[in-house]
Amino acid sequence: MSKSLSGFPEWLPAQRQLELLVLDTCRVVFELNGFASFESRAVESVATLARKGDITKEVYAIARLAQEKPFSEVAPEDQLALHFDLTVPFARFVVENAGKLDFPFRRYQIQKAWRGERPQEGRYREFTQADIDIVGVDELPAHHDVEVLLVMSEVFNRLAQHGLPQIDLRLNNRKLSEGFYRGIGVEDPDTVLQLVDKLDKAGPEKVVTWLEEKAGLSKEQAQQCLALANIRGSAQDVAQHVADLGVSHEMLDEGCAELVAVLTELEAHGAAASADLSVARGLDYYTGTVYESTMQGFESLGSVCSGGRYASLAKGQKNTYPGVGISLGVSRIVGPLLSAGYSMSRSVPSCVLVSVATEEHRGQARRVARTLQARGISALVAPTAAKFGKQIKYADRLGVPFVWFPSSEGHEVKDIRTGEQVAAEPDQWRPPLADVVPSVVVPQSAKDLDTESE
Amino acid sequence: MSKSLSGFPEWLPAQRQLELLVLDTCRVVFELNGFASFESRAVESVATLARKGDITKEVYAIARLAQEKPFSEVAPEDQLALHFDLTVPFARFVVENAGKLDFPFRRYQIQKAWRGERPQEGRYREFTQADIDIVGVDELPAHHDVEVLLVMSEVFNRLAQHGLPQIDLRLNNRKLSEGFYRGIGVEDPDTVLQLVDKLDKAGPEKVVTWLEEKAGLSKEQAQQCLALANIRGSAQDVAQHVADLGVSHEMLDEGCAELVAVLTELEAHGAAASADLSVARGLDYYTGTVYESTMQGFESLGSVCSGGRYASLAKGQKNTYPGVGISLGVSRIVGPLLSAGYSMSRSVPSCVLVSVATEEHRGQARRVARTLQARGISALVAPTAAKFGKQIKYADRLGVPFVWFPSSEGHEVKDIRTGEQVAAEPDQWRPPLADVVPSVVVPQSAKDLDTESE
Repeated sequence: MSKSLSGFPEWLPAQRQLELLVLDTCRVVFELNGFASFESRAVESVATLARKGDITKEVYAIARLAQEKPFSEVAPEDQLALHFDLTVPFARFVVENAGKLDFPFRRYQIQKAWRGERPQEGRYREFTQADIDIVGVDELPAHHDVEVLLVMSEVFNRLAQHGLPQIDLRLNNRKLSEGFYRGIGVEDPDTVLQLVDKLDKAGPEKVVTWLEEKAGLSKEQAQQCLALANIRGSAQDVAQHVADLGVSHEMLDEGCAELVAVLTELEAHGAAASADLSVARGLDYYTGTVYESTMQGFESLGSVCSGGRYASLAKGQKNTYPGVGISLGVSRIVGPLLSAGYSMSRSVPSCVLVSVATEEHRGQARRVARTLQARGISALVAPTAAKFGKQIKYADRLGVPFVWFPSSEGHEVKDIRTGEQVAAEPDQWRPPLADVVPSVVVPQSAKDLDTESE
Repeated sequence: MSKSLSGFPEWLPAQRQLELLVLDTCRVVFELNGFASFESRAVESVATLARKGDITKEVYAIARLAQEKPFSEVAPEDQLALHFDLTVPFARFVVENAGKLDFPFRRYQIQKAWRGERPQEGRYREFTQADIDIVGVDELPAHHDVEVLLVMSEVFNRLAQHGLPQIDLRLNNRKLSEGFYRGIGVEDPDTVLQLVDKLDKAGPEKVVTWLEEKAGLSKEQAQQCLALANIRGSAQDVAQHVADLGVSHEMLDEGCAELVAVLTELEAHGAAASADLSVARGLDYYTGTVYESTMQGFESLGSVCSGGRYASLAKGQKNTYPGVGISLGVSRIVGPLLSAGYSMSRSVPSCVLVSVATEEHRGQARRVARTLQARGISALVAPTAAKFGKQIKYADRLGVPFVWFPSSEGHEVKDIRTGEQVAAEPDQWRPPLADVVPSVVVPQSAKDLDTESE
């Protein structure tokens, strides 16, 4: 990684190939599932961004360099800033363009966002997210909750086929938690949710203390909240675990039934997901199903992929727009994967280097390359007519597996890993499927881990 | 287009499909030709950006919202701004990471950039460019000039197969112009170049006046510069046209020979290109081959795709990095194409809508969709179990051509354009190749134009 400006990562060519694999896998799966691409502008009004709460520390404002005034003196309607997620711009776009969209509107958005926070492993000031959302007008059927989770599972199933780690999906339901809190007499469930959300980082003792001091709960209420958050389970047993706590409330029952229904459907389609009632998702716009997920072997990063159901993403003049979505932190996983030693077999897309005997033969080499390219095989022409040994070394440095030797008397192609050289025709030869595009090189440490878990 | 913030375009779903076609075509061709993907951070120091000249009017500075100082009082090393092109960040990256790159380094970069200029048709404040460059250490063979032009020609050949307009490539050579100016006794050829660059917009009379007043040329010298700029031609005749002007200079001869060599190679590979000695490219870092291109039927937009050879993209402590590149203004062409009525057949990627008879049949529909998706066919499951007529209308609104009717007694699929309905199996049925992805709908006006030119 190039580190000339802290928090603004730039990947070297081979590293970028790994990021592209993740981005392309997301896009292919999203499109196969009928999500339409959307890209928002990078810029929002500060007023729009501020609807999500206090943002002054996080947001990068922008202004023409020539501007003499400090931002604080610019009229609010003229203050612009870079978006810090993809949900706020999407919500604004849906309300602005509702008349031109077909609902339920299914969009994917793979784009950068910016936050002025302190950089650390997997946390950057400039980062890429891959989001999908399904948004309806005034109502949206519950089956879409399952759908977005199946789509993201499929992304990681495909990444796992390339040797990248799987994720563990953990689900909860906001109604279940809120209903439970109300059932034990809590009057401000939002504050409790926000404190329970900190369990992971602060630990149970601190959270119990906060629940008493900040949310005004009794010791017993705080312990019951903790007992609920400790529940883990499958579709089969989670309802029993909740019932064992002996609390009853209509909203609790509704949330629990929804959670069991979603888990049952996910299991039926073979997705690895389980209930984790500590999942709270701090943002207050979630109203039903919520989920987080950690990447196997990278649990310390926290959730890399999360989202949920919201009753109202945005409100227009006449309508509300309920939805459900999931967001993958692409930079969040790519940075740590690279640090852990995951890499790619090549720094270029090419599978073949076409060698050049002398500069007079460059035209011939170019025609060979174009014939291969027309058949979907990425081919590079050697930059100079150096000795063949040097040209082969150049291919080796780039990770390009094949070197082509053009000849009017019969072409040959060499696999430089094995040294095997065979006769070949540019309009017929095909590389092995595994060599068509760069592949993931899994670090030994991850292979060891895999063997242990078998 | 959504126009809520002037100069920051956001495409509606079907419009975005057209932009994606352009972006994907660029990427596929760039990768087939062995260019590696690179993405720079969006942010540079103001000092880095300012190396290209006066930028205060153009550049968007960024700062944390909480910052109280106006930019002008921020220490220069802490001033950050959004990049206004992809060349400056690339040059900075190459120098910073030269030790980790393999040269010649071939990169493509498809990314947004920002300029605070007045928005107009095809000119935005936020816009996407697609650039390729090949950069060497201390030297770079001349054949790469031809290569980048062939790659961009291939991009437009493929776009033309989808019904989008071709471009006309127009070439010049900086040495030819500078040598000519020196040959007639001009002392400051850079100023002359910058004035000649304005011929398109200002017209010959004004430019001649400027050449006399601003560059201190005699009337005769100014007329000779104009005569040179008026030369158009092919590889066969351009040298003769230049010779006819009766000026002689070593640098002129060298530039002319280079131009003829590049044109000859381009013609040999079937690329449509011609000499246009008015092409100047205002930026002073070009040192050899330079090119511009207009899109057929959209000549009033000016050049949409341009670049050239530079002796020194950047200077490190020990080395210089010569290169050659070309840059396509993606937003520059997509906006006007959409305004001219070009559109796409669908607003979603899906080829098939799988209908749902009742909510109990949703699982079955989902399995059909997954089987199709696993075979690369984008499929959408109907959002509700409405009457089939309503589900078909939904598909029609999205532009989805096929509706699937799952049944345990035998599936059927209907082409809703023709009404034809046939038996089909999800693990075997294939849509016609033309229906796999959305296709371009060419406006009647452009078809009429095509017929006239035949």
